[in-house]
Amino acid sequence: MEKLYIGVDLGGTNIAAGIVDVNGNILCKKSVKTNLPKPEAELEQDIYNLCKSLCEENKYNLDKDIKAVGIGTPGSVDGKRGIVWSNVNFGYENWKIKENLEKLFGISVYVENDANAAIIAEVMAGNAKGCDNALIVTLGTGVGGGAYLNGEIYAGYNYAGLEVGHIVIEKDGRQCNCGRKGCFERYAAASALTRDTQAAMKEHPESALWEICPDIEKVNAKTAFDGKKQGDAVATQVVDTYIDYLACGLVNLINIFQPQVVCLGGGVSNERQYLLDLLKPHIDREDFARNARERTEIVIAKFRNDAGIIGAAMVGVNND
Amino acid sequence: MEKLYIGVDLGGTNIAAGIVDVNGNILCKKSVKTNLPKPEAELEQDIYNLCKSLCEENKYNLDKDIKAVGIGTPGSVDGKRGIVWSNVNFGYENWKIKENLEKLFGISVYVENDANAAIIAEVMAGNAKGCDNALIVTLGTGVGGGAYLNGEIYAGYNYAGLEVGHIVIEKDGRQCNCGRKGCFERYAAASALTRDTQAAMKEHPESALWEICPDIEKVNAKTAFDGKKQGDAVATQVVDTYIDYLACGLVNLINIFQPQVVCLGGGVSNERQYLLDLLKPHIDREDFARNARERTEIVIAKFRNDAGIIGAAMVGVNND
Repeated sequence: MEKLYIGVDLGGTNIAAGIVDVNGNILCKKSVKTNLPKPEAELEQDIYNLCKSLCEENKYNLDKDIKAVGIGTPGSVDGKRGIVWSNVNFGYENWKIKENLEKLFGISVYVENDANAAIIAEVMAGNAKGCDNALIVTLGTGVGGGAYLNGEIYAGYNYAGLEVGHIVIEKDGRQCNCGRKGCFERYAAASALTRDTQAAMKEHPESALWEICPDIEKVNAKTAFDGKKQGDAVATQVVDTYIDYLACGLVNLINIFQPQVVCLGGGVSNERQYLLDLLKPHIDREDFARNARERTEIVIAKFRNDAGIIGAAMVGVNND
Repeated sequence: MEKLYIGVDLGGTNIAAGIVDVNGNILCKKSVKTNLPKPEAELEQDIYNLCKSLCEENKYNLDKDIKAVGIGTPGSVDGKRGIVWSNVNFGYENWKIKENLEKLFGISVYVENDANAAIIAEVMAGNAKGCDNALIVTLGTGVGGGAYLNGEIYAGYNYAGLEVGHIVIEKDGRQCNCGRKGCFERYAAASALTRDTQAAMKEHPESALWEICPDIEKVNAKTAFDGKKQGDAVATQVVDTYIDYLACGLVNLINIFQPQVVCLGGGVSNERQYLLDLLKPHIDREDFARNARERTEIVIAKFRNDAGIIGAAMVGVNND
């Protein structure tokens, strides 16, 4: 019988679990509210109950049909030992999640930071499949990152690495929540693009952006791209500036890692090929290894809305 | 008998070879001019002849006393297969240096990029000894880097990674030779500090820097540090600005890698503890993981003038 895995996307608001095959297809899924704060043991029981009922409702036997459970969680995670060093949102420290959940489940449980789970999914079954060296950069509320290097996850000495959103690309630039000024995510996050679009609209009441989105509160990362596609000058300026900063940070990462593939995820990556086409000339001009025989390829991440569940399941596949 | 290794620092001007023990001590050394351009086979013979005569002059037997030969070379190097993909300065492509030299030497030969050799030396026998995750950043003519991650060299998919000098930290800033604007090395290299010191002296004829170095052509990376130590306001401004940019780039690397140790090498690192003390408050303020239980430590690289020979030898030790 085909090997199946459970992936658990452990978020601060919801816990989502899915039964996933080795190719990253979700066969069924279910979620419950996380309802924080609560003690670790209670959350562990919630995770187990969710997975148990997911299996029962879909006629799977947790013991016989499921090879392993993978958990993707925010925070600093020692994937090899299965310990969450610190998860500030949950208020947990030194959480022995693997050991505790294996007692409940009776089968293998693996855990990884959620960004690391996302790159594992792309490497195992997505758009970086088979790569030994690949990055994921997510352009969402912030800019996040995960790295698969020399054939394994790279998390840093203290499991807190790959904060690629917090590299300064404009010294003394925009104030970041992290305390620095000019961080990459202040310019390249979906939220930054949204704010820049709103600011441009306020300055330019003549812009077609107002027709695309008459309610300025509803502007999102797609708005300016839609305006540029229609030929609006203000939207074009907003997008071109955005791409200039995004490319700047991406080339920084390429010059450091020279990975085979960089996967772009998060809201902005919904622009897909249009986004890649805008980035390409910048990368071709600035990549330090632009004359090398092998070059980094930038792609859109394969796994989208269910990336959390699939990534977590792939952590199980990867370790199994 | 103690294991000995030959380290060969293969530069565009000189080839330097040394017999080195496992602790990174050089027992004897010798160098010859590289005399480029010349065909690969001729250079290989030069390397062999240099090592052979180094052994003979010092009463070592190349076959019996030497365990392995390590070569450190500029360019993109596939250390596992022992191939130099590209060395632009030498004009070589796809140079099968390991295979060719092993035929000449009759013992194991290993090759690495010179920056990678430098971090191997620090990890094997230097100030990052025993670390699984460490970086070296060299502050010389440019800013170079090498990375040892998850217990092995990380070179990138195309062996051209770790160009840490070519991350933009000031968008649209100073023009870099690489084609980008605002690269880290334009602000943090020893040569940048020298140029900034000279510019400040021209603007400020009253500065004590003119007493420290009356001939402006002889200014180097030490000059401004000397001035700041004497309390000169102009020198202090130059050094403080330099440190601000250096810290900016170093924190970028820390936020990406969160290594156990960052070793600083190159001319500027001769300022040793004085340099580290100036950097520390910046790092403590900006490191994204400043509240983590384990933090990156910045140290001065142990191996100095002979780092090339020792690093190359340690490539042999590491592979042996």
